[in-house]
Amino acid sequence: MDSINTERAEVLIQALPYIQKFKDKTIVVKYGGHAMVNEGLKQAVIHDLILLSYVGIRVVVIHGGGMEINEFLEKTGKESRFVEGQRYTDSETMDIVQMVLCGKVNKEIVSLVEQNGGKAVGLCGLDGQMLEAEQLLINGQDIGYVGEIKKVNVKVINDVINQGYIPIISTVAKGIEDGKPYNINADIAAAKIAAELGAEKIILLTDVPGIMRDMEDENSLISELKLQEVPSLVMEGVLTKGMIPKVDCCVEAVRRGVKKAHIIDGTVPHSVLLELFSDEGIGTMIS
Amino acid sequence: MDSINTERAEVLIQALPYIQKFKDKTIVVKYGGHAMVNEGLKQAVIHDLILLSYVGIRVVVIHGGGMEINEFLEKTGKESRFVEGQRYTDSETMDIVQMVLCGKVNKEIVSLVEQNGGKAVGLCGLDGQMLEAEQLLINGQDIGYVGEIKKVNVKVINDVINQGYIPIISTVAKGIEDGKPYNINADIAAAKIAAELGAEKIILLTDVPGIMRDMEDENSLISELKLQEVPSLVMEGVLTKGMIPKVDCCVEAVRRGVKKAHIIDGTVPHSVLLELFSDEGIGTMIS
Amino acid sequence: MDSINTERAEVLIQALPYIQKFKDKTIVVKYGGHAMVNEGLKQAVIHDLILLSYVGIRVVVIHGGGMEINEFLEKTGKESRFVEGQRYTDSETMDIVQMVLCGKVNKEIVSLVEQNGGKAVGLCGLDGQMLEAEQLLINGQDIGYVGEIKKVNVKVINDVINQGYIPIISTVAKGIEDGKPYNINADIAAAKIAAELGAEKIILLTDVPGIMRDMEDENSLISELKLQEVPSLVMEGVLTKGMIPKVDCCVEAVRRGVKKAHIIDGTVPHSVLLELFSDEGIGTMIS
Amino acid sequence: MDSINTERAEVLIQALPYIQKFKDKTIVVKYGGHAMVNEGLKQAVIHDLILLSYVGIRVVVIHGGGMEINEFLEKTGKESRFVEGQRYTDSETMDIVQMVLCGKVNKEIVSLVEQNGGKAVGLCGLDGQMLEAEQLLINGQDIGYVGEIKKVNVKVINDVINQGYIPIISTVAKGIEDGKPYNINADIAAAKIAAELGAEKIILLTDVPGIMRDMEDENSLISELKLQEVPSLVMEGVLTKGMIPKVDCCVEAVRRGVKKAHIIDGTVPHSVLLELFSDEGIGTMIS
Amino acid sequence: MDSINTERAEVLIQALPYIQKFKDKTIVVKYGGHAMVNEGLKQAVIHDLILLSYVGIRVVVIHGGGMEINEFLEKTGKESRFVEGQRYTDSETMDIVQMVLCGKVNKEIVSLVEQNGGKAVGLCGLDGQMLEAEQLLINGQDIGYVGEIKKVNVKVINDVINQGYIPIISTVAKGIEDGKPYNINADIAAAKIAAELGAEKIILLTDVPGIMRDMEDENSLISELKLQEVPSLVMEGVLTKGMIPKVDCCVEAVRRGVKKAHIIDGTVPHSVLLELFSDEGIGTMIS
Amino acid sequence: MDSINTERAEVLIQALPYIQKFKDKTIVVKYGGHAMVNEGLKQAVIHDLILLSYVGIRVVVIHGGGMEINEFLEKTGKESRFVEGQRYTDSETMDIVQMVLCGKVNKEIVSLVEQNGGKAVGLCGLDGQMLEAEQLLINGQDIGYVGEIKKVNVKVINDVINQGYIPIISTVAKGIEDGKPYNINADIAAAKIAAELGAEKIILLTDVPGIMRDMEDENSLISELKLQEVPSLVMEGVLTKGMIPKVDCCVEAVRRGVKKAHIIDGTVPHSVLLELFSDEGIGTMIS
Repeated sequence: MDSINTERAEVLIQALPYIQKFKDKTIVVKYGGHAMVNEGLKQAVIHDLILLSYVGIRVVVIHGGGMEINEFLEKTGKESRFVEGQRYTDSETMDIVQMVLCGKVNKEIVSLVEQNGGKAVGLCGLDGQMLEAEQLLINGQDIGYVGEIKKVNVKVINDVINQGYIPIISTVAKGIEDGKPYNINADIAAAKIAAELGAEKIILLTDVPGIMRDMEDENSLISELKLQEVPSLVMEGVLTKGMIPKVDCCVEAVRRGVKKAHIIDGTVPHSVLLELFSDEGIGTMIS
Repeated sequence: MDSINTERAEVLIQALPYIQKFKDKTIVVKYGGHAMVNEGLKQAVIHDLILLSYVGIRVVVIHGGGMEINEFLEKTGKESRFVEGQRYTDSETMDIVQMVLCGKVNKEIVSLVEQNGGKAVGLCGLDGQMLEAEQLLINGQDIGYVGEIKKVNVKVINDVINQGYIPIISTVAKGIEDGKPYNINADIAAAKIAAELGAEKIILLTDVPGIMRDMEDENSLISELKLQEVPSLVMEGVLTKGMIPKVDCCVEAVRRGVKKAHIIDGTVPHSVLLELFSDEGIGTMIS
Repeated sequence: MDSINTERAEVLIQALPYIQKFKDKTIVVKYGGHAMVNEGLKQAVIHDLILLSYVGIRVVVIHGGGMEINEFLEKTGKESRFVEGQRYTDSETMDIVQMVLCGKVNKEIVSLVEQNGGKAVGLCGLDGQMLEAEQLLINGQDIGYVGEIKKVNVKVINDVINQGYIPIISTVAKGIEDGKPYNINADIAAAKIAAELGAEKIILLTDVPGIMRDMEDENSLISELKLQEVPSLVMEGVLTKGMIPKVDCCVEAVRRGVKKAHIIDGTVPHSVLLELFSDEGIGTMIS
Repeated sequence: MDSINTERAEVLIQALPYIQKFKDKTIVVKYGGHAMVNEGLKQAVIHDLILLSYVGIRVVVIHGGGMEINEFLEKTGKESRFVEGQRYTDSETMDIVQMVLCGKVNKEIVSLVEQNGGKAVGLCGLDGQMLEAEQLLINGQDIGYVGEIKKVNVKVINDVINQGYIPIISTVAKGIEDGKPYNINADIAAAKIAAELGAEKIILLTDVPGIMRDMEDENSLISELKLQEVPSLVMEGVLTKGMIPKVDCCVEAVRRGVKKAHIIDGTVPHSVLLELFSDEGIGTMIS
Repeated sequence: MDSINTERAEVLIQALPYIQKFKDKTIVVKYGGHAMVNEGLKQAVIHDLILLSYVGIRVVVIHGGGMEINEFLEKTGKESRFVEGQRYTDSETMDIVQMVLCGKVNKEIVSLVEQNGGKAVGLCGLDGQMLEAEQLLINGQDIGYVGEIKKVNVKVINDVINQGYIPIISTVAKGIEDGKPYNINADIAAAKIAAELGAEKIILLTDVPGIMRDMEDENSLISELKLQEVPSLVMEGVLTKGMIPKVDCCVEAVRRGVKKAHIIDGTVPHSVLLELFSDEGIGTMIS
Repeated sequence: MDSINTERAEVLIQALPYIQKFKDKTIVVKYGGHAMVNEGLKQAVIHDLILLSYVGIRVVVIHGGGMEINEFLEKTGKESRFVEGQRYTDSETMDIVQMVLCGKVNKEIVSLVEQNGGKAVGLCGLDGQMLEAEQLLINGQDIGYVGEIKKVNVKVINDVINQGYIPIISTVAKGIEDGKPYNINADIAAAKIAAELGAEKIILLTDVPGIMRDMEDENSLISELKLQEVPSLVMEGVLTKGMIPKVDCCVEAVRRGVKKAHIIDGTVPHSVLLELFSDEGIGTMIS
């Protein structure tokens, strides 16, 4: 019997305290962007999630799909118009957003989970009246079917978890006024859903190591951050444009009662396990 | 108090024996084609389904979406190629099929149910490993991602019903060989799912009154048909090209144990209630 | 397919919002007097109740039986003696009251429900120690086995509903002092039981359209009444002698937390459905 | 501490093996006739039943009420007509039978159980569609509402036991043809109900010590009897007219699968306990 | 049928009110010392406990074993050393204490219960992390593995009762600091466990009739004692050295919420039943 | 983030297919001998078992304790007498056997599991009437309290697992004839318990690598063995004296329906995980 196997067993055992710690707890994973691109990394993330569900953790996956939407809009020759950096989303664009998110990205993740021996059910904010939104105006300007969440009803999520499935969630919401589907910022949705679920943690998978004082220098990573430290970081200009919405999401989640929020590098293989199953974790933790 | 109200109460009461008869039974409704087009009729069908679920019937909706797929393919300028009347479905086409079915049609129905006070969850054959298929060859010829169902696992459907939701199902299946999504004939899928669920009835909503000896003459409607009478009808040429797959679906369902299969006119308002809540029913019943 | 059927389906669908509204709510129906006499109307009421139970409403029936008691007392040649309008109820009279209520009227209603496809169990205040009473004195005068409810224990009622039955209740109570059966005013009993059950509504079936300013003029019907308006109505003499106990019952129920109390004409076919399944309702609503 | 108490504790302990033996088993007690008359003995029987239910035995009580019916018929001046020893039961007589059984005797037993700390619900064959009967003809002659049980549905009995109540049952059945109540021989009903419940024992409380070879001589008691010995006893004339229906009931019960049937003297205090909680038992056992 | 049997039935019935009173309540019995020695008395106690569990009382047995430990220590030639009356318990002694308690005395009681038709599971404070202790110092002096309970976790006890077993508990606890087993005073353990279980009563079986003003005179027995009367009894010197820890246990239990604590003579046959099933009880009750 | 962590995550993920394979299956581990001696290895085994229970495997531990028994017998100066290699077990010896097994070894394992974050309950064959035995005679000769299992009742084991505990079992059984405790061969007990539990696997922890053709040469290990190959191995003299009872146990288990039996080297760290969580496993598998 080779010594490698014994070492591997040792590794399994070292995971035990973490398994015990998170048993029956809810962990919300926001999955999107570059972590979804590389096929091998995708598998790594999926395996992490299935493993978590097998050891008794209540895993919820919330995904985005901006890149896939862009790609498809291009294919259909649909021109894009932006208002203050937000895409103007007319009815036709919304159709494509919804189809790509709920019909393609969501089902791909569901399929990946199932193929690797997990059990998953794809949901969107329309299922079980999970998400309800009002139109989001940018400086009072109508930019179409872009919404702001007003109600979160997590019953359907818990129903699905209780039956043994990992819920995979697309963040399309029902418009309260018109009943039409609205596109929703997935990070914010994840924060609100995590809060409503009483989640232990929310983990945002990004393509950077976390919040860094100097984006060029990985050694400048800020491992831990308190809510109250965020404003000064913004003022100091440490938080870059792309990072601000991530941090906002974390702040929102923690303020509403989620114990810890993490911004980690989803392109690192097994980043979710690395975060959950080690003391030091990876990336930036906001609490 | 006006006499109309009393009459209306009388109508409710006349529904009671039917409610008692179907309580806790499973009814699979194949919903698609023209029954899905007219907005008013769509509402009528949805209300029927919600009412059924409220009076304790286990309702399952399986939908198609050929018209919406065609429309979208056109929009993306994707050219269509047909092999023996079956669309050649390359990977790009399959993407669109899946997005339209799972991302648009499915979620629209879910949304309609929810807006009218019902509870729904959208599923496809990939969720909970519900449908698994092998590639369908036409005379040995490869026509892409068109599949034939080999395994039906209704656990996820029952889980969803037991939690109080109406499952709305898109018939995309997982390829057993390659794990890729395959498009599946929705009628056949409905038949197999109904059989596996031990359904009391399967109801196919079409845009004709049922099977007619003379397509021009509604009076020639055949109200009841036994399995063994089908072959002679085919030989007599009574079954038109469009009707044959519907009848095949019914035959398949009944052979596998579904008690009764119905072909009814989904463009008639409340056709589902008319079928279930009257002795004579509507359309053609195959048993 | 005839157009009448479509209209009928429409009617069913119009009931849907009401079904959704009252799902899992408790509705107490006080059933007695003339609503119990006409055989056809009796069937109409029973069908209403069964329908309610089938659509998920928790129905409780509390019945009187004054007319049947009178009839039977006469038959046995038992002379009646009245004190301030209340029948002097000696032991022998009480025996007859109990036998007629629990043994005849109750079981007839149970039987009617069962014959029409519902499930019912007959109870009285002695079963499961549901009702306990003290002797009611009229101006300090002993008038026999006439009681005033002191304790209501609805456990047996809920047990029976939870098993799927409609409880049919006779209002005989156990004497706290002597353990003997006491006759109880059914209206008051209904109010107290409804309150204890946390009922959404209590409906009193009478043989008049409701509270009318002029008993001869149906157009003088008062559709809605607030608790605080009752005393002035009494002072104005609007409430007739027969109506006062009904109104007292409603007031008692609403004061103890029942949301709405209704006095309706039970001789109108399907009066219960007319009340529950329309916006305007019928009769007089006290809240 | 006095020695009597220790002796009494010893007695309790001697009951333990019997408690263990009958735990979770169903015991049907047919209670009627003279065992119901003496107030003290009535208390003794009731205490026995409550004790049984407290130690985990599923107790079902089926009662008659011939004496009370006679008494009441007399009171109403209703003349009796007999056909071959069976009372001609017209509609009016049936009303009285039902009222006395379901409304008086039944509720008295319920009340007695409740007053002594047990929990009881009164049922008759009409509740939960428990008993259905056809008219019994005597030599082809119509003797009114006297029925023969055709269907026994014990669901409502088990529902009531499972909720923790002792069901007290009056043997009025629903006529299959006309839906009207029919009077049923309580002994036969008890046998059929016991069989359907899979009862361990049926115990008939009578006013004689059991089957005796010589009615004048208690020492001639037959303690045990096998089914196959009954016919010869009939031929020998040992079984008197009053005893034959009791024995018929026992034979019916045992033939349908009840393990043991007992005819015991209900006028002996605690006769039920004496039978169940001693090896030798009392009265006559048929198996 | 002999009159003795009827008397015995009467005795059973007289137990009924007590059975009703303690149904579903928790009774903790501290069993040890002389009550465990005489084989016949042991059987009497065991039968009492089984009977209690059969009539629906949640029985918990906590045992000591000082005499058996002494006997075994002697056998192994292990010398004993005492510090202020407490045995110095080195590691080797602790091994023997644990083996005798958990391996011998505990399993003997389990075995006795099972042989007499009860169901039992033996537990000690190490099972299910039930008892955690810190080292007990006597005037700051280390006397080895003697502990003081710091945490009581009754989950495992309730789990075992809920599955239908009588838990038999040895009072060995886990050391919070070193994880090693510690010996615990069984009386104190019983008090704390009873409190944590929300027990109705704790019963200490001793070999004296209770607290007596004059140990030589049984007539001086104090039947009832209030918490606040204890200190003066101590001051008066009424409480002997052996009795003080018993009384301390009772005081501890009552202070923490146990309704009543009893010191009774376990050498009296059926002393537990005598206490529970009579109004006057036996021994001394502290409340 | 260091690369080692990523490798470790990879290892966790590689365990996933094995976790999926054994989810909800029962694995019986026979734990004893040298695997119990080295403190570090003991920890390794315990961690393995806890990990298994956390990932949803139903783990049952059956332990021996020969070495501890010998040690203790020596300490008490108890002389040993052997009959055909079996220890003559008089009453005094049996006492010590039971105390060491149930009171010391068992509780030590329970304690180890609890200290490492698992939940455990210690049981022996006397608890819940799990094991019943008859005296084992050696060539008709009485060698005292040595028994042969005649009845296995796994209810208490399943009750304990269902409540979330790992049952730790000492193999002392109740004598059917005399009710006294009997010592039982732990290997045989494990085989019979595993069979009765419908276990997926039984794993025997020994201090050799498995069955080897040449005890001196680890390369001669036989990895797989079919039941029918065993007799020839015995004839060839491959199976040594110490190994024969292990193989007998495996044969017994497999014959009674356990899918696979394994003889592995418990002194290898994490041997249980190595066996379960790798394709090749370790040691010898008999099927």
